[in-house]
Amino acid sequence: MEYRHLGRTGLKVSVISLGGWVTYGGHVGNELAEQCMKAAYDAGINFFDTAEAYARGDSERVMGEVIKKFQWPRCDLVISTKINWGSHNASSTEKAQNCVGLSRKHVVEGLKASLERLQLEYVDVVYAHRPDRDTPMEEVVRGFNHVIERGWAFYWGTSEWTSEEIADAWRIADKLNMIGPVVEQPQYNLLTRDKVEKQFAPLYEKHGLGITCFSPLKIGVLTGKYNEFKIPEGSRLATATDPFTTSVRAKFDSDEEMKKNIQAARDLKPIADELGITQGQLALAWVIKNPRLSSAIIGASKPEQITENVEALKHLDKLTPEVMERIEAVVKNKPVLEPRRFT
Amino acid sequence: MEYRHLGRTGLKVSVISLGGWVTYGGHVGNELAEQCMKAAYDAGINFFDTAEAYARGDSERVMGEVIKKFQWPRCDLVISTKINWGSHNASSTEKAQNCVGLSRKHVVEGLKASLERLQLEYVDVVYAHRPDRDTPMEEVVRGFNHVIERGWAFYWGTSEWTSEEIADAWRIADKLNMIGPVVEQPQYNLLTRDKVEKQFAPLYEKHGLGITCFSPLKIGVLTGKYNEFKIPEGSRLATATDPFTTSVRAKFDSDEEMKKNIQAARDLKPIADELGITQGQLALAWVIKNPRLSSAIIGASKPEQITENVEALKHLDKLTPEVMERIEAVVKNKPVLEPRRFT
Amino acid sequence: MEYRHLGRTGLKVSVISLGGWVTYGGHVGNELAEQCMKAAYDAGINFFDTAEAYARGDSERVMGEVIKKFQWPRCDLVISTKINWGSHNASSTEKAQNCVGLSRKHVVEGLKASLERLQLEYVDVVYAHRPDRDTPMEEVVRGFNHVIERGWAFYWGTSEWTSEEIADAWRIADKLNMIGPVVEQPQYNLLTRDKVEKQFAPLYEKHGLGITCFSPLKIGVLTGKYNEFKIPEGSRLATATDPFTTSVRAKFDSDEEMKKNIQAARDLKPIADELGITQGQLALAWVIKNPRLSSAIIGASKPEQITENVEALKHLDKLTPEVMERIEAVVKNKPVLEPRRFT
Amino acid sequence: MEYRHLGRTGLKVSVISLGGWVTYGGHVGNELAEQCMKAAYDAGINFFDTAEAYARGDSERVMGEVIKKFQWPRCDLVISTKINWGSHNASSTEKAQNCVGLSRKHVVEGLKASLERLQLEYVDVVYAHRPDRDTPMEEVVRGFNHVIERGWAFYWGTSEWTSEEIADAWRIADKLNMIGPVVEQPQYNLLTRDKVEKQFAPLYEKHGLGITCFSPLKIGVLTGKYNEFKIPEGSRLATATDPFTTSVRAKFDSDEEMKKNIQAARDLKPIADELGITQGQLALAWVIKNPRLSSAIIGASKPEQITENVEALKHLDKLTPEVMERIEAVVKNKPVLEPRRFT
Repeated sequence: MEYRHLGRTGLKVSVISLGGWVTYGGHVGNELAEQCMKAAYDAGINFFDTAEAYARGDSERVMGEVIKKFQWPRCDLVISTKINWGSHNASSTEKAQNCVGLSRKHVVEGLKASLERLQLEYVDVVYAHRPDRDTPMEEVVRGFNHVIERGWAFYWGTSEWTSEEIADAWRIADKLNMIGPVVEQPQYNLLTRDKVEKQFAPLYEKHGLGITCFSPLKIGVLTGKYNEFKIPEGSRLATATDPFTTSVRAKFDSDEEMKKNIQAARDLKPIADELGITQGQLALAWVIKNPRLSSAIIGASKPEQITENVEALKHLDKLTPEVMERIEAVVKNKPVLEPRRFT
Repeated sequence: MEYRHLGRTGLKVSVISLGGWVTYGGHVGNELAEQCMKAAYDAGINFFDTAEAYARGDSERVMGEVIKKFQWPRCDLVISTKINWGSHNASSTEKAQNCVGLSRKHVVEGLKASLERLQLEYVDVVYAHRPDRDTPMEEVVRGFNHVIERGWAFYWGTSEWTSEEIADAWRIADKLNMIGPVVEQPQYNLLTRDKVEKQFAPLYEKHGLGITCFSPLKIGVLTGKYNEFKIPEGSRLATATDPFTTSVRAKFDSDEEMKKNIQAARDLKPIADELGITQGQLALAWVIKNPRLSSAIIGASKPEQITENVEALKHLDKLTPEVMERIEAVVKNKPVLEPRRFT
Repeated sequence: MEYRHLGRTGLKVSVISLGGWVTYGGHVGNELAEQCMKAAYDAGINFFDTAEAYARGDSERVMGEVIKKFQWPRCDLVISTKINWGSHNASSTEKAQNCVGLSRKHVVEGLKASLERLQLEYVDVVYAHRPDRDTPMEEVVRGFNHVIERGWAFYWGTSEWTSEEIADAWRIADKLNMIGPVVEQPQYNLLTRDKVEKQFAPLYEKHGLGITCFSPLKIGVLTGKYNEFKIPEGSRLATATDPFTTSVRAKFDSDEEMKKNIQAARDLKPIADELGITQGQLALAWVIKNPRLSSAIIGASKPEQITENVEALKHLDKLTPEVMERIEAVVKNKPVLEPRRFT
Repeated sequence: MEYRHLGRTGLKVSVISLGGWVTYGGHVGNELAEQCMKAAYDAGINFFDTAEAYARGDSERVMGEVIKKFQWPRCDLVISTKINWGSHNASSTEKAQNCVGLSRKHVVEGLKASLERLQLEYVDVVYAHRPDRDTPMEEVVRGFNHVIERGWAFYWGTSEWTSEEIADAWRIADKLNMIGPVVEQPQYNLLTRDKVEKQFAPLYEKHGLGITCFSPLKIGVLTGKYNEFKIPEGSRLATATDPFTTSVRAKFDSDEEMKKNIQAARDLKPIADELGITQGQLALAWVIKNPRLSSAIIGASKPEQITENVEALKHLDKLTPEVMERIEAVVKNKPVLEPRRFT
């Protein structure tokens, strides 16, 4: 396994990490979740990502149970969770007013509830799961620093914030002598590149921002499994019942963006074939080639998927400058950076 | 229910909240108090206000018992208490020297005692119940920040402070990189408007001050129940034995201010009748129309009162600009703001 | 009882307080100590002073037992202790290197040990018992602020520091946004006035320094009990075996300073007689007339002494400007303040 | 025993301290370790140094057991440990990514694990065991201040950092109003002088840096035990199996540096003989003569070694200016300080 620093921090994370998004606590049974986490751990993955929102807290519960069962030493692991969407903690939707967002109340109460579900004393990284534009940035920065001071997390990061919001958080943290967000978690893959390669560009040097990306395989499109423009029987997209998957499935046939993406995946296939690797490995290796990336978060509903994904690390060298250029010629989406005199 | 942010914080509070002033722990029996809190909770009220001073701590005890009994999730609720008058914690009046005021000692000891009575780990908001002009503002600001740091409250506010005192607290909090008071709790109603509409005007934009007001119905005068210039039999004013109510009752017949207020209430009746709402609903709706208000704190000794009050929210639209002008023509007390070039 | 603020803090202390210096835990039996504390408490004294050094910790132990026995509410009481001389915590004199002084280690360990002996969660005020010129002022200021942050004290003060040292502590506290020492505890009485009336003069306005003085009766000289230039049989000075008392006794007959002081006490007798009060009451009332004084700490080995001392408060008015001038004419030690343009 | 302040702190440490490097928990049996610690304690040594790395945590375990067994009062002792190399806490070498270094995670987790092994609530001093150039200095400074705030240590220091790194830590600590490293632990002896006497020169006045040195006898060379250019049978160098000792042994015969050092030791023998002290005592006394040194850390596998070393303190006066010059003439390595106008 390759390990990278999480942005400019001293924390080392495996460049591939395992996320518990729609899967653990959701449509993947607890036993399979356990097998996947075990396979990941055995393959050298030390970084496990979850969120209070995933499967209404069940993703955290499952992860907590697995960590406890295998008695993995705490220092072996980097555990992250995300706070913003904890309405399942409330007794009703109307009562959930303060179970969402990034108010000091919810940052404290949300993280406390997460730690109970995880059966942990602390997480390593706590993310602001999306910005909360109704809460002043100073309250957000103070809230996350408060939970760090209390020993419930070592670092805090953001997920799907704009570069302006991240810069603003740093401006306030600097003013208050506090800690700013050390990592952002956006989507990043061959088909979605703008944020990581362009928008966040000024933040890397200035604030040492790290990137942990989700969806490195573009919800599977880049593995080639939709290359026939159809949803394979028995796949997650065919069977899962969470709102996100359901909505993707509903508009699958009419979604022009989806068609364009599948076409790109089809066009990348010859390159993968030529290198003797799977399409998924090609896509994952490409993401990992970006040195700004600290870790690519993969999902898995079967241990074999983890093995295949980790295998990608052996083939990084195959992505030579020439191959990279051929890939660019297919995806045709390389962001153009604007010159900037100062950062 | 409508929910608003508490001033510029990320906390969401129901625009109507329930207070436990002379009632819970006082002349209203515990069973009725329980019914009222339940009715409020069921009606979407998430914000419950009390104080160490109310009924010598019994208001907090009753609230704590009710919260415990119904096992309402903590994140459902926004609980506030107020510190300044805890002489009942002492063994005698003379011994109560440090059970009142806003010294670091009493802020810590008072809040600790309140939390024990409430059976809570923390309140959401702790108020300075009146200013303490014998304690330096820096000690007050440090004291409230200290209890926030220790996890006993998320925010602090003031009750019946002047605008200069609030601005001074912010000046010191800013200097010390601390948190200033996010909310003030004054009296505010159709008959008492100066503070909220004029004195505090510069604080809203500058410090994001929120307002939670007490006495939106002017101790019942605006419900019309004294329209006959008499105390109705069986009413709280006729029966309650707390010092405040007793003193109001004693001077009722000779109080010119009271007569003027009752006359205004009588003059507002035709407007309420015309809109097809009660006088109390008109008065409460008028308060809530002020967007500076975060929450109007009502008292209740019967669950029905809560239902009637919450009903007012359905009629906010009836207070059209034209109706608002007719109301102004009755009360004739609209504050005139002085122009100010800078805030 | 009269209560005053402790310097510029919000804390209220009885203007007469009870100290447990050579007495409690020392030559005064526990039962008498208990009777004295009870008498003091009943007389309205709310402020009890001790130190880790007194009677090798036994003064704290006795005070703790008495507080526990009578179940006095914590908020009734203002308890202070002092840290600097805890060598009795060590297993030998040589091992006591870090059981004395104001290093961060000893401030933390000393106060922890004091709280255990007192059976309290916190004291109200912790004093630096004499300066420690081997420890940098920044470490001292940080140490006392650290124990305040941890909730083990509300305020810190100094005992027998110079005005320059107090000013330096404030300079550093201000720089670090920390809390400076709010009170100094020097000797102050009719015969020793320079520090309180002259040296500390610039600190009262600038830093709001409060004064709690010890020895208001000049170890009894001002009560007139040595007016015959002899040690009365059975008195503490005749019987106590602590090093300080022993050394005073040893040089009693040859001590020119002592003789001068006794002569002054003799000369004050006619004034006391004329006012119809005891010499001790005159001396104590004189100290209390100084508005800079927050509290005068008295010792007592018999409950009657407390009654007599507290009685002095009834006679403050007798010290008219004319009487004050007659007193000055006897003691002839009024400090001359140098003019100062800036403080 | 002589006690010195640890740099500019208020902490007093014995000028000779006992370290548990390759010895306790390692090749020296627990019973001998216990005898050595007891002998040291009885000889007035109050300062015991260990590290998470020593003997994979066993050095801490042994020390903790001995402290517990003899029930030495905590305030008698100054205990230091070092954090940076805790890979033994992990389940495998690959999993140890975050069990080494000075990330916030490892500083917290490492010290927590050390305290558990030591069975202590806190250490007095926690060292950064070597710099971690992959972690930003701000994270390091914040991490050590965080554990101090939580009450797990009173001071922090460095071990084998460069002067630039120490100065940088202070620059950041000053900016953040935090505590900088108060002590550095380098090698220092007659044969290795550059760091202590030259590189760190600007730091003593500016930051009050203290020095605790290891290897004052140059792994025994300066005791004269290798004067015959041979490893004595039964010595630690002949028998210990830790990697460091093994590597020294392996290259002993071919190591030119070693030969030069032994030659110097041989040349110092006549001076020691003339003064009537052992070569080891001469070397140790020479180190202690440097007033910048707070404590020289000795190792010991037999109680007698401690007695001999402590004996050196009686002979400090024998190192007159003339003797010091003769020593310089033998070692010929006196650093030349460059003039500097400002520090």
